[in-house]
Amino acid sequence: MNIQQLLTKKRHAQELYDQEIEYFVKSACDGSLHASQIGAMLMAIAIQGLTNAETIALTKAMINSGKRLEWSGIVVDKHSTGGVGDKVSLPLAPALAACGLKVPMLSGRGLGLTGGTLDKLESIRGFAVDLSSEQMNECLSRAGCFIASPTSDICPGDKATYSYRDVTATVDCINLIVASILSKKIAEGCKYLVLDLKAGKAALYKTVAEAEELAKHMVDAAKDLGLKMKCVITSMDQPIGRTVGNAVEIEESVACLKGSGPADLVELVTHLGGELLVMCGKAISLEEGINKILNVLNNGEALKRFKEMCIAQGVSAEDALKLCNQQFDGILPKASFVTKFKVTKSVIVLNTLGWVKFIDAQAIAEVCWELGSGRRKPTDKLDLSVGIKLLCSAGDQISAEDCWLELHHNLPVSDELARKLDKSIEVSPTKYCNVPSRIIKTVE
Amino acid sequence: MNIQQLLTKKRHAQELYDQEIEYFVKSACDGSLHASQIGAMLMAIAIQGLTNAETIALTKAMINSGKRLEWSGIVVDKHSTGGVGDKVSLPLAPALAACGLKVPMLSGRGLGLTGGTLDKLESIRGFAVDLSSEQMNECLSRAGCFIASPTSDICPGDKATYSYRDVTATVDCINLIVASILSKKIAEGCKYLVLDLKAGKAALYKTVAEAEELAKHMVDAAKDLGLKMKCVITSMDQPIGRTVGNAVEIEESVACLKGSGPADLVELVTHLGGELLVMCGKAISLEEGINKILNVLNNGEALKRFKEMCIAQGVSAEDALKLCNQQFDGILPKASFVTKFKVTKSVIVLNTLGWVKFIDAQAIAEVCWELGSGRRKPTDKLDLSVGIKLLCSAGDQISAEDCWLELHHNLPVSDELARKLDKSIEVSPTKYCNVPSRIIKTVE
Repeated sequence: MNIQQLLTKKRHAQELYDQEIEYFVKSACDGSLHASQIGAMLMAIAIQGLTNAETIALTKAMINSGKRLEWSGIVVDKHSTGGVGDKVSLPLAPALAACGLKVPMLSGRGLGLTGGTLDKLESIRGFAVDLSSEQMNECLSRAGCFIASPTSDICPGDKATYSYRDVTATVDCINLIVASILSKKIAEGCKYLVLDLKAGKAALYKTVAEAEELAKHMVDAAKDLGLKMKCVITSMDQPIGRTVGNAVEIEESVACLKGSGPADLVELVTHLGGELLVMCGKAISLEEGINKILNVLNNGEALKRFKEMCIAQGVSAEDALKLCNQQFDGILPKASFVTKFKVTKSVIVLNTLGWVKFIDAQAIAEVCWELGSGRRKPTDKLDLSVGIKLLCSAGDQISAEDCWLELHHNLPVSDELARKLDKSIEVSPTKYCNVPSRIIKTVE
Repeated sequence: MNIQQLLTKKRHAQELYDQEIEYFVKSACDGSLHASQIGAMLMAIAIQGLTNAETIALTKAMINSGKRLEWSGIVVDKHSTGGVGDKVSLPLAPALAACGLKVPMLSGRGLGLTGGTLDKLESIRGFAVDLSSEQMNECLSRAGCFIASPTSDICPGDKATYSYRDVTATVDCINLIVASILSKKIAEGCKYLVLDLKAGKAALYKTVAEAEELAKHMVDAAKDLGLKMKCVITSMDQPIGRTVGNAVEIEESVACLKGSGPADLVELVTHLGGELLVMCGKAISLEEGINKILNVLNNGEALKRFKEMCIAQGVSAEDALKLCNQQFDGILPKASFVTKFKVTKSVIVLNTLGWVKFIDAQAIAEVCWELGSGRRKPTDKLDLSVGIKLLCSAGDQISAEDCWLELHHNLPVSDELARKLDKSIEVSPTKYCNVPSRIIKTVE
């Protein structure tokens, strides 16, 4: 077997045998492939696609390239394809733990416009995301959950190809997404998984149809791999909650864990958590599941788990307490400047009052990225203090005198960025109260 | 402009603009592309193809990535897609020079099973293939021809991608072949080109239909680029002439230049040369062109040019004279062992006599390669003394007592290789005299 034969087959849209796919993953791991060969194979897969059998073989090869973790208890997890202001994991993992489940969440850093869950957590003073298996075990016993970086022995076959997907423009290849996500979740020991597939202007997939296509592939593959899974397609046009960035999203997550999160964030956390409770038999209906999650957000049980998780992951008991009491000074980094923005006159032309119709998540994320909250390349260091706090949401009434956005920054804000922010809010002169649910549909 | 955008376009079979193709070639040259991105682009091109306009743009971008040579006189060249025992350039370049043409032949080394023209020439003691522009000029004035390696400033854009084609299994992509061949020929200053497109069991393209497909693309592109060109499709099932290797092919080339070459080699040299003479107005018919080439092979004029070329490219006058007098001792490397092979009994079963029906060029080339005459990777050093001399050709009568092949080697010959050689000759018990012309058709 040699890689040129496999490249020739896939170039001509032929199906690869399991052993051929194993050979590709193994060779990518052990460094015997040239980078140009990995790039060529990813492109051939992106163009010609993989059959269901090939996708399963790729997923298994990635799992088997490393270690598979095992935990006692009912092991669940949530994964999202990524959105602007998507901090759902931060309240959800402790909430699920508070419901008696185990959540060994291996997460990632952001490479797109926004920071990832790990980046957000690292804005908490002392929070460690690199844990040994022993530390992970301790976290699970103590808090019922952890959110950590995959150790190097988890799916090295995924790691060896993942970094090439961005540079070769093959990130949105469905087969590669399926294998990459499912392999990591199965290797971390997850038995019940809920996938939050984002669709919209600020998501990888712009349309519900595309997200549904991914969902179908996911469901098919999960079945064959023995993983219980549901996909929830949710809208990703406007920012989730009212914060975008890293430290600012921790603040909002704490608020959510204290029962005072913004409605759309609470909807996502309770719905995704509710689905998981139903899947693993802890609730008999979605409604009951949602209420159980809501309950632990409101009664302090989830916050307690969050505090325990922070302490188990390196935060001092004193800092964890302050964090949970929303005393963020010294615990979270602060930007040097806070600039407030008013709605520009051109938007509210004749009336002094208007209603917020739409806030453009993509534009907001691009501004944060320009100011240092996201990465250009994997090795970039983020400015975790940079971010945006929205002072309104779609449906809210707003006047020309009101500030609608607070920009936390350290770099100067160019006229171009300011104009971009000005244009990222749409205000309607007439009352606009059509604020739809973020939940679009469930595929299982 | 960024490479991910171009990769995305080609992945989705969209046409790239001229500036985008220039950007790709420029970035490949200046090292700003990651190897995985070059591999991904080559694979996307191999699968989705290039339009005629894209192929022209790629060829021009490769030419413009470096220097373009200029020579006085009628500048012609021949290029072959590569065959087993293909030594045509060695007698042809001096023969064309003897007809009053200028032949600044920039050639390559072999990466497939066989050595390239440059490898063969390097088996002559003192022969230098790395020439400066000044040295090239001197060779052209003195001998009317040279055969040299492209200087680093000739089509660096082709060099930057060429080496990835082999490892990414995109060598046979027609668009890439067209751009690679035509860019180098135009950059070397060639105005009239004849292309020898091999078709058969031992060629890159197995069928005449595939070779014709390539020929059509070549002709279209050459027209748009202002290059006068003809494609001759020739058969590549059996070895060309009676030698396969490096030094042994020099011996046969000298014989051809002295008017005693094997019939098929002479046919190729005179036909391809004849076509060129017609193209540039030095002959009014192909027949006249063929006769003119035949004449300079027979009257010593071509041999004289070959001798001058050798001297101009570093061979001592004394050595060049010996070479032309077929005194090869000390001039060409010799293998330690010469093993002769008889036709095995199983082939000539009942009769003591048979007729050679077929000699398998691919098998012969594989044996030579195993013994060191070809490369596994670009940096491999060849054993130039290794090779095969055939003692018969298709159509010849042969008896069970006759040796049919002489193997020149330094490594021991394994049983497996010996069996491979035994199987590479087909003998017919009845008279078999259907030895077809190597010329299949001309596409222009």
